Amino acid sequence: MSAGAHQVSYQDRQKRLEEALRGAGLEGMALNAGPSLTYLTGLHFHLSERPVVALFTPGQPPVIVLPELESGKLDGLSYPVQDFTYGELPETWAGVFNSAMGAADFPGKQVGIEARQLRVLELNFLESREMGISLVPGETCMEQVRMRKDEAEIEAMQEAVRIAQNALQSTIPLIKPSITERELAAEITIQLLRSGSDSQLPFSPIVASGPNSANPHAFPSARRLQEGDMLIIDWGANVGGYYSDLTRTFSLGEPEGEMKAIAQIVNQANAAAQEIAAPGIAAQEVDRAARGVIEAAGYGQYFIHRTGHGLGLEGHEAPYIRDGNPRLLEPGMTFTIEPGIYIPGRGGVRIEDDVVITEQGLLSFSDLPRELNELEI
Amino acid sequence: MSAGAHQVSYQDRQKRLEEALRGAGLEGMALNAGPSLTYLTGLHFHLSERPVVALFTPGQPPVIVLPELESGKLDGLSYPVQDFTYGELPETWAGVFNSAMGAADFPGKQVGIEARQLRVLELNFLESREMGISLVPGETCMEQVRMRKDEAEIEAMQEAVRIAQNALQSTIPLIKPSITERELAAEITIQLLRSGSDSQLPFSPIVASGPNSANPHAFPSARRLQEGDMLIIDWGANVGGYYSDLTRTFSLGEPEGEMKAIAQIVNQANAAAQEIAAPGIAAQEVDRAARGVIEAAGYGQYFIHRTGHGLGLEGHEAPYIRDGNPRLLEPGMTFTIEPGIYIPGRGGVRIEDDVVITEQGLLSFSDLPRELNELEI
Repeated sequence: MSAGAHQVSYQDRQKRLEEALRGAGLEGMALNAGPSLTYLTGLHFHLSERPVVALFTPGQPPVIVLPELESGKLDGLSYPVQDFTYGELPETWAGVFNSAMGAADFPGKQVGIEARQLRVLELNFLESREMGISLVPGETCMEQVRMRKDEAEIEAMQEAVRIAQNALQSTIPLIKPSITERELAAEITIQLLRSGSDSQLPFSPIVASGPNSANPHAFPSARRLQEGDMLIIDWGANVGGYYSDLTRTFSLGEPEGEMKAIAQIVNQANAAAQEIAAPGIAAQEVDRAARGVIEAAGYGQYFIHRTGHGLGLEGHEAPYIRDGNPRLLEPGMTFTIEPGIYIPGRGGVRIEDDVVITEQGLLSFSDLPRELNELEI
Repeated sequence: MSAGAHQVSYQDRQKRLEEALRGAGLEGMALNAGPSLTYLTGLHFHLSERPVVALFTPGQPPVIVLPELESGKLDGLSYPVQDFTYGELPETWAGVFNSAMGAADFPGKQVGIEARQLRVLELNFLESREMGISLVPGETCMEQVRMRKDEAEIEAMQEAVRIAQNALQSTIPLIKPSITERELAAEITIQLLRSGSDSQLPFSPIVASGPNSANPHAFPSARRLQEGDMLIIDWGANVGGYYSDLTRTFSLGEPEGEMKAIAQIVNQANAAAQEIAAPGIAAQEVDRAARGVIEAAGYGQYFIHRTGHGLGLEGHEAPYIRDGNPRLLEPGMTFTIEPGIYIPGRGGVRIEDDVVITEQGLLSFSDLPRELNELEI
């Protein structure tokens, strides 16, 4: 299933951007290749040395600057665009960008950009002093447009979770002492694809064993799994551009007693966050609920990251479930809940679910058991 | 095999950066998470909403700004670093960046950046007017440091090509009418991993069939392969961070006559480029050699991209094999040769090899047959 099958109206999305821009006092938005551009246009471009930028101005069709060799992607769009293409000589690109910014009626305007997506490469073409364009933060506008997922987006995410859960089930029988983290990561990737994920995974699976499990962002290594290891697997699938992002924790045989204890604490922290999250609750309250459980158990210093992050067309997006974020949750917001405890040199536990806020409270897309999975070896 | 197995000296690489900076009149380099940072430090970071930046100043250890939860990655480095970590509150990050820039002795200096890698997110933290730091283009310095691959890098790339070639051989039996482009892309991905690629592929395989094969950057779609289709497969593997990137063209049964003809022309263009490439030859001469063959055959307007691009830790890097690039090829430079002809609405052909310039001329890592592969169906 692809989100495209639901007849997305990109014109409706562009209208919603116009409203958000007006609300924020902005007169346009400039987006490079990435999820926001895809959300608003349905177009996919690789981020490369050839800049692709879409310029949005209320009341007129989007203006797209792109390489000639990509222009075929504009055929058959369901809405009007104005395109400006360039060839292989970088010296000629500035002129094409200037024409496009003129066509978008950008001169003299306040135009939003996304600091996390836009590179200096594109910025240099957009920052034309003689045109008097002010580039200002546009993240809040884009969050407002994208953060509440519609039914088709939620279905895609549910499917991405279903695929990821099936892939893990197929991989568990392969978890044995002597397999390396990298081999196991490759197997999970294979099972994700066999289970139906689009081939561009949201991220390479994390497989972190033994002491490596104490590093929340470990890269799979050549380390061979051993009896007694803790094992964190963090993996996800892609369905029509929408992501899942799950984590479960295992042990190879019986782990040391403290690891069993922290696994229970993290599970309780996950439950506390899922319990409190609902419309009208601040993102930071969800973080506090999880963190409170871990702090009360004396492990506060070992929970070294936020409780979660928004999820959708990006692996990390708004809303961020962290201390200091007063944003009130609303129906349609989708995010992870992923408390963890990491004891340096020894091991860690993380339990991550993907959830959506509904009118009634919270729905978890993921339902794999959250208890420490002690594998017989 | 990972490039790390060859005992890379990151300090040597940092010394070479110092020389390149001095030669370019720069006093420092600021790099965000990406291939250049990895090349100089051996450290891997995801590009995320949490900025990671390394600051290099000749004569002193690198300064690294990173999230607290990633600081474990600095344990056991073979060279000294000064690290500045930040927590989960974005409001506190600017202060940490300012301290780091002070420690790197950046105030008042000319510091290089990479426009293709650095995002506005990091730029905003580095652009501190009161410190009087001038951020200027640093790509040329980094290219100078990275472009000539050493023996270990070349071995990793050869292995990445070997894995990719094996993966294609294992996939060919699955190419039949009725399989979709997406299913075939998933199978190639699976075979890449089974053949030993690291799980983070350089890019998602391109599988473009029938009319889609006329789009050089097509994304795999739900289209089912049909008898008579042209089929372009563009795929690659990752070995220790080093990439391969190959393309071969197939037909499902007998294609129309013109497609057979263009396949021969593209093969001749590929051979002409491989023939001329050698130390002291300009990159643009290699492009002209391939383009000349295609133009002479009357298909110049359908060869809508450059002949190739550098390859290594990035899918696209210097040297770019294109018109207007006077750069002279040197031993150790690695790049693709990938001429193509694309006839809109009907189909296309591309033949892509990965090569290295040697003292003697050119060595192609890839040796799969380059003729149109007419599959029996």
